[in-house]
Amino acid sequence: MKYPLTPDVKPEFCTTGSFMRLPADNENAKVAIIGMPFDTAASFRVGARFAPQAIRQASMTLFPYHPIHKVYPFDDTNAIDVGDVPVIPHNIHRSYERIEAAMLELMQKGIIPIGLGGDHSVTLASLRAAAKVYGPVAMIQFDSHTDTWDTYYEEKYWHGSPFIRAYEENLLQPDKVFQVGIRGTLNHPGDLDASYELGYNVITTPELRQRGIADVVSEIKNKIGDTPVFLTFDIDFVDPAFAPGTGTLEAGGFSSAESLEIVRSLTDLNYIGFDLVEVLPPYDPTTITSLLAATLIHDFASHVALNEKKNDKK
Amino acid sequence: MKYPLTPDVKPEFCTTGSFMRLPADNENAKVAIIGMPFDTAASFRVGARFAPQAIRQASMTLFPYHPIHKVYPFDDTNAIDVGDVPVIPHNIHRSYERIEAAMLELMQKGIIPIGLGGDHSVTLASLRAAAKVYGPVAMIQFDSHTDTWDTYYEEKYWHGSPFIRAYEENLLQPDKVFQVGIRGTLNHPGDLDASYELGYNVITTPELRQRGIADVVSEIKNKIGDTPVFLTFDIDFVDPAFAPGTGTLEAGGFSSAESLEIVRSLTDLNYIGFDLVEVLPPYDPTTITSLLAATLIHDFASHVALNEKKNDKK
Amino acid sequence: MKYPLTPDVKPEFCTTGSFMRLPADNENAKVAIIGMPFDTAASFRVGARFAPQAIRQASMTLFPYHPIHKVYPFDDTNAIDVGDVPVIPHNIHRSYERIEAAMLELMQKGIIPIGLGGDHSVTLASLRAAAKVYGPVAMIQFDSHTDTWDTYYEEKYWHGSPFIRAYEENLLQPDKVFQVGIRGTLNHPGDLDASYELGYNVITTPELRQRGIADVVSEIKNKIGDTPVFLTFDIDFVDPAFAPGTGTLEAGGFSSAESLEIVRSLTDLNYIGFDLVEVLPPYDPTTITSLLAATLIHDFASHVALNEKKNDKK
Amino acid sequence: MKYPLTPDVKPEFCTTGSFMRLPADNENAKVAIIGMPFDTAASFRVGARFAPQAIRQASMTLFPYHPIHKVYPFDDTNAIDVGDVPVIPHNIHRSYERIEAAMLELMQKGIIPIGLGGDHSVTLASLRAAAKVYGPVAMIQFDSHTDTWDTYYEEKYWHGSPFIRAYEENLLQPDKVFQVGIRGTLNHPGDLDASYELGYNVITTPELRQRGIADVVSEIKNKIGDTPVFLTFDIDFVDPAFAPGTGTLEAGGFSSAESLEIVRSLTDLNYIGFDLVEVLPPYDPTTITSLLAATLIHDFASHVALNEKKNDKK
Amino acid sequence: MKYPLTPDVKPEFCTTGSFMRLPADNENAKVAIIGMPFDTAASFRVGARFAPQAIRQASMTLFPYHPIHKVYPFDDTNAIDVGDVPVIPHNIHRSYERIEAAMLELMQKGIIPIGLGGDHSVTLASLRAAAKVYGPVAMIQFDSHTDTWDTYYEEKYWHGSPFIRAYEENLLQPDKVFQVGIRGTLNHPGDLDASYELGYNVITTPELRQRGIADVVSEIKNKIGDTPVFLTFDIDFVDPAFAPGTGTLEAGGFSSAESLEIVRSLTDLNYIGFDLVEVLPPYDPTTITSLLAATLIHDFASHVALNEKKNDKK
Amino acid sequence: MKYPLTPDVKPEFCTTGSFMRLPADNENAKVAIIGMPFDTAASFRVGARFAPQAIRQASMTLFPYHPIHKVYPFDDTNAIDVGDVPVIPHNIHRSYERIEAAMLELMQKGIIPIGLGGDHSVTLASLRAAAKVYGPVAMIQFDSHTDTWDTYYEEKYWHGSPFIRAYEENLLQPDKVFQVGIRGTLNHPGDLDASYELGYNVITTPELRQRGIADVVSEIKNKIGDTPVFLTFDIDFVDPAFAPGTGTLEAGGFSSAESLEIVRSLTDLNYIGFDLVEVLPPYDPTTITSLLAATLIHDFASHVALNEKKNDKK
Repeated sequence: MKYPLTPDVKPEFCTTGSFMRLPADNENAKVAIIGMPFDTAASFRVGARFAPQAIRQASMTLFPYHPIHKVYPFDDTNAIDVGDVPVIPHNIHRSYERIEAAMLELMQKGIIPIGLGGDHSVTLASLRAAAKVYGPVAMIQFDSHTDTWDTYYEEKYWHGSPFIRAYEENLLQPDKVFQVGIRGTLNHPGDLDASYELGYNVITTPELRQRGIADVVSEIKNKIGDTPVFLTFDIDFVDPAFAPGTGTLEAGGFSSAESLEIVRSLTDLNYIGFDLVEVLPPYDPTTITSLLAATLIHDFASHVALNEKKNDKK
Repeated sequence: MKYPLTPDVKPEFCTTGSFMRLPADNENAKVAIIGMPFDTAASFRVGARFAPQAIRQASMTLFPYHPIHKVYPFDDTNAIDVGDVPVIPHNIHRSYERIEAAMLELMQKGIIPIGLGGDHSVTLASLRAAAKVYGPVAMIQFDSHTDTWDTYYEEKYWHGSPFIRAYEENLLQPDKVFQVGIRGTLNHPGDLDASYELGYNVITTPELRQRGIADVVSEIKNKIGDTPVFLTFDIDFVDPAFAPGTGTLEAGGFSSAESLEIVRSLTDLNYIGFDLVEVLPPYDPTTITSLLAATLIHDFASHVALNEKKNDKK
Repeated sequence: MKYPLTPDVKPEFCTTGSFMRLPADNENAKVAIIGMPFDTAASFRVGARFAPQAIRQASMTLFPYHPIHKVYPFDDTNAIDVGDVPVIPHNIHRSYERIEAAMLELMQKGIIPIGLGGDHSVTLASLRAAAKVYGPVAMIQFDSHTDTWDTYYEEKYWHGSPFIRAYEENLLQPDKVFQVGIRGTLNHPGDLDASYELGYNVITTPELRQRGIADVVSEIKNKIGDTPVFLTFDIDFVDPAFAPGTGTLEAGGFSSAESLEIVRSLTDLNYIGFDLVEVLPPYDPTTITSLLAATLIHDFASHVALNEKKNDKK
Repeated sequence: MKYPLTPDVKPEFCTTGSFMRLPADNENAKVAIIGMPFDTAASFRVGARFAPQAIRQASMTLFPYHPIHKVYPFDDTNAIDVGDVPVIPHNIHRSYERIEAAMLELMQKGIIPIGLGGDHSVTLASLRAAAKVYGPVAMIQFDSHTDTWDTYYEEKYWHGSPFIRAYEENLLQPDKVFQVGIRGTLNHPGDLDASYELGYNVITTPELRQRGIADVVSEIKNKIGDTPVFLTFDIDFVDPAFAPGTGTLEAGGFSSAESLEIVRSLTDLNYIGFDLVEVLPPYDPTTITSLLAATLIHDFASHVALNEKKNDKK
Repeated sequence: MKYPLTPDVKPEFCTTGSFMRLPADNENAKVAIIGMPFDTAASFRVGARFAPQAIRQASMTLFPYHPIHKVYPFDDTNAIDVGDVPVIPHNIHRSYERIEAAMLELMQKGIIPIGLGGDHSVTLASLRAAAKVYGPVAMIQFDSHTDTWDTYYEEKYWHGSPFIRAYEENLLQPDKVFQVGIRGTLNHPGDLDASYELGYNVITTPELRQRGIADVVSEIKNKIGDTPVFLTFDIDFVDPAFAPGTGTLEAGGFSSAESLEIVRSLTDLNYIGFDLVEVLPPYDPTTITSLLAATLIHDFASHVALNEKKNDKK
Repeated sequence: MKYPLTPDVKPEFCTTGSFMRLPADNENAKVAIIGMPFDTAASFRVGARFAPQAIRQASMTLFPYHPIHKVYPFDDTNAIDVGDVPVIPHNIHRSYERIEAAMLELMQKGIIPIGLGGDHSVTLASLRAAAKVYGPVAMIQFDSHTDTWDTYYEEKYWHGSPFIRAYEENLLQPDKVFQVGIRGTLNHPGDLDASYELGYNVITTPELRQRGIADVVSEIKNKIGDTPVFLTFDIDFVDPAFAPGTGTLEAGGFSSAESLEIVRSLTDLNYIGFDLVEVLPPYDPTTITSLLAATLIHDFASHVALNEKKNDKK
């Protein structure tokens, strides 16, 4: 074996430093951090392949206890960090296969993955795995874009299409899909209509501001109930001031405080997976984007820890 | 043809130098982007001469449709980008003459200019052109400073004095001038009094926060009515977190979401020109300032498109 | 004498450029800016030793008049800038002794110091001086952390422990200590309990958001009354978007506008000292953190000027 | 008319989007700047898609005359800038087809292209076009890597393999291929042997240092003679201090002065195309990499101008 | 007096932190550091107004002794730092008058000024002062540009023309003017011819490389002899890798080691003034440009100290 | 166990990602990478505590084979990465004890450590370990400073004194100590004399330039012979253009090519340890400093691999 491992085994940007120094193995693990450093499907700025390592580094300033949920998200779940999927930078389909396989392995063991993207197209691979284990699932998507555009550059697979592809592949329960925070200019009115036509619930930024977080959270929880649900968080949901390190900045978004509040409110759901996508470290000189991402992941794991607690009581 | 060209024609990162790849000519043009890269009148940080190109680059991630106003701001107006006025870096008066001439040429053709500054002193040149075509005009100024200081370094022309000079030159209808967002430390109480004495309406940041956007917008619309109005937006209206790339940062400003909301609310006015000033790319490492500027310009053009629509209906 | 002064006299990072170009001496001074460029007690990122010079540079864009309080904070108080305490980078106790001595000298003359940190541990030295002059004092602390952890790396003196040490040394009146803005992950529930056990008033970020600024300010003013009070502001109270240049970023904090509002509301208190700590210029590429710090200091001095005015009227 | 327009016409910071403000058309053009913003085949850092616009911006500080070669490289050749090839970010083969077609169109008109990459894989597409017009060509490659690795991630097309693919496709005359400046760590000894086995001339960095520029240039000129030759310059030939903005930095390279000297010495060759690849603007905060790239392109065009002059004399 | 001094007294960017903590007064001073923060005459990038404070900050890491010349440059000369000339950002002539007056005051006292620019046009003002005291002087100019262009933007006074203006004003002895390091593209052949026609000695970068430092230094020393000489160092003499923070970068320049060597070799000349111009801190994120500038200034002062020593021996 | 490990076990800046993905264990290891993230003894800029993780990240672009020495430095030596020593940020002596213990454990097993500093004071701890195993050792120090100053701030232990302390503690054979590359301003002549008085061989930068690398290397090899030797490389040996990310920049240093050449020439020595110190990632925005550091470490390990090969042949 030659060091570093040759790229046929692992690309150079797949590192071995773990999130919050989690171990790689624990037979009782309920949660696993997993990197998906794939960014070839991005349409404008690129560099999300360095997000998993940047988020892991940012995680070093987090502490183990969540004072609002009153859990130790990583300890209560025996969390592990299984490293990065060895994606293939210029091959979308081989990369999706590897991501799907890695996700499937975790889910089949009953481990809930928290994926570190990567561009948003990686979520399609995760949903393929999820559907194999759970059938079509519910989804909560925080994003400034619906990502239900059909093609771009006449290509069907890119970071703006995963949720039309997921629909076509029957991976989602459309009426239990929530796209929250949509804003920004559009190519044409049909960009939004695409989501409505698929039957997704679209909650734009103006609507979320008008209704308030509590009302929207209540609707989501009511409609999803105990359906297995995947939460995908595109960091461009957040305003560029709070998350400059992303690929398609949209002015006028939410603050980090609002973002954390809405995620923290979404308790009592049957989470089967999470991901955090579109962090681009080369555009994040102050590292605040990675820090926010790591904090959100602390919250994702807290949801699992809360669910574990409830299960223990039963 | 929609601007920018859809990605099936060309990816966003293939530039042509113009705002959203607009053409340089269109005989039916109602809107023109025009650069005014003059920054010699700045008192502290400099570099706004690079703003026009930075804002044009940032515009490449915008899409042609405005989902709230339901218009194609650049297509509905046959917009053009006429490039930059060849200003003279160290000659204020020759630069103003050239800017005024370029603005006049557009206005006389019935084209509404959207100027990309430049330091705020360039607005004086635009107002000179406007007054020649429309007589004294109304003005809505978003800014943390009144820019009605008389002199600085014993000089009368600099970026803190355009609106006292404009008054002296009878370019404005003082009771229809609104200076919105004023905040920050002052040289002495007279700094603010200067604006009051000219008869301008000053709405400070605390006042805007207390009254709310809707109330202030209502007052502005009522008082200005259908008077020809020039909208000038100094990016330091916005808080430094959202717009770090400017010359005289003032902590405690508005968010990008609030800024877009207030601009979007100012419908049904008889706009005859716009500008966006004081973006300093050398101080904007994450490009979020330029992105916000480009987004605001998309909104400026939307106002023209909305007015065009109304005219069509009549 | 050799230039620069040898490091045995002053470390290289102790500059001589003064805050807003204040003089070094004024026999009627009521306020003194004083740098405390000590950062050895920081646990993660370091570099606060460069904060005093960065804040002084940022101060150059401030003007002398405070339009809300209607005072000239530095002129009304004959303010001075006494430069930096020559701290010893790798010797905590010798550094504290020098800071304490410098603070004591000012306080004994009736001059109110505004300290420019430095990591938060420097406040312990200031409180030691304060207690010698005033006995145990009240304290208002803006911070995302309580800084009442007992040890770290098995060390008792570091930037997370000054307020448990201050308690042990009887420098504070515990029921008149307010820790405002606490948020973020914890090591364990006991991190917060430590403050409660000391008898401090802890107002977390969620509580401050829920109750509102006015209510909290009212409680603080009522409880502290005219007790001599020290105000310490850790810049990480503010959200990383508004203050990226700090050592232990905590997502989900307050905006600069909110921060200024709460500080501005705390009038009519018997201030005997202030400090502003944990600005890290190497992590502040846009300088917005230093600018916010300088603005807050303008407000601190305004409180003294207001108090001077009241005294004059009596 | 000299390009760029003299400052009496327009300051350098008034851009038009093209290299040195060249026009898009000229029926007598002998040289064309053409962007190839494709970076999907990069193995580590990405972002070369923004190189064409960054190099064009950097070109604005160049002047029209080359004082050493005593030519006006862009005027003497009636140079044009045809903009960017609309590559497809995540489709290598469709992108190569478009680049090849664009190159072919130029070459068939007798226009010598100067390509702005892009990752180094784009050169394969250019060589395909060249071979169609000229048959297998000679090549001078400045690079720290041979780019003759067979596969990476088990993929045949990536930025480390263009020159083994070019060999397989019979696009080059192997004994007239010079790979100059090779250095850095290797996967195994075979990395270098691959080039030797193909019959390429490999001149490593140590060899170039030992023999000197004049000797190596002499060998290249002798061996290539008047064979049509393509010059490809990977900016990582240059040391990271002079060209930090690239994807696979190799310490210990040449200075910008040495790089310009060797390029300037390669006169009297039958150039049929050039490219400059692997500039990554997101990693070039001081823009010195783009500036060096633009300067090298000025030199490339000077070679064509010199050849034109000689042709004129005949 | 209000703090900060109002801009009519001093612009905000004129700081009071001194070079190496030198005092402002010393009746035996032979050397004075003096800032000239004027950058309005720059044609492309701007920001040299912040150079004096950046160079002063960088000077803090220098030590008092020069081990090669074996002098204490600032102590042996009783050096002072008289702060910045209060230039007027947008008024070239008023600024020159103030610079000239400040320089004259020093020179008339027999103090040798070391000016911290500013753009290169400030040297004209210094030469005006020098000629009043010494008559036409010799000059050694390190630069990549001759700065003898007649006009730009049809303006006669800008940073590319000081040395044609100085000729016209009879401030220099043309045959004792050396322009060293000229390189880069030109507007036309006449750019260089302008210097030859004025009778200046032009030593281009290729010539300096070919002849070597010793040979050129020897010629300069022979020709200038004991004529009063002004040394002006434009930091763009140095390669962009070593001095990225400047306004008109020219690839292919000298290293910092070579730059220091040539300056150190120019002993035994009758220096009557120095300046260091065209440092632009906003483009110098690593501060290496300012550090090199401060080091060169340490060497300038060493020349004076050496001359003092010789005088003492006589 | 709580994740992350509490700081009493390991500071947050001690990461787990390994150099070139080396394993943590190998019973046949001859080389071990070991981080020493201690920077409290630095006198000016701080941040070397982040160097071990930055160098490890930069190592990801290196390949396993060294083409000049024709070895696989990490494979031929069964190299391991044992992570970071859990230093105590604000306690010099406890940190040294931990570093010494970790080094001792490796050396006693016959493993040659390659330490990643940290400020230069950490070398003292390594030499303490070395002397326990090997008695007083030879040392080759690449540095722009001698680091034999007695005190600073009246403190004996800081990053400018390790080699006077090492002398006092009898850890070195003074006549076999080489301090190579010394340059820069001094406090007084005695700064250099200190080294001479200890009997160290000082080779200044001018001397190294004059004599050439081969001559100096020859002297070093002759004088040291087969004495156990420790090589310590302070990255400020290199010019700031090539290594901007360090704490006390000295203009006029060596290039990366020269630095690699001299290290590569020092074959056939009996190395018993190496370290690479004073890399400061917060001041290294382009990461070229870390990349050069990682490349030098590749060379350090190659020396061990070469020695292993020779041993095998015997």
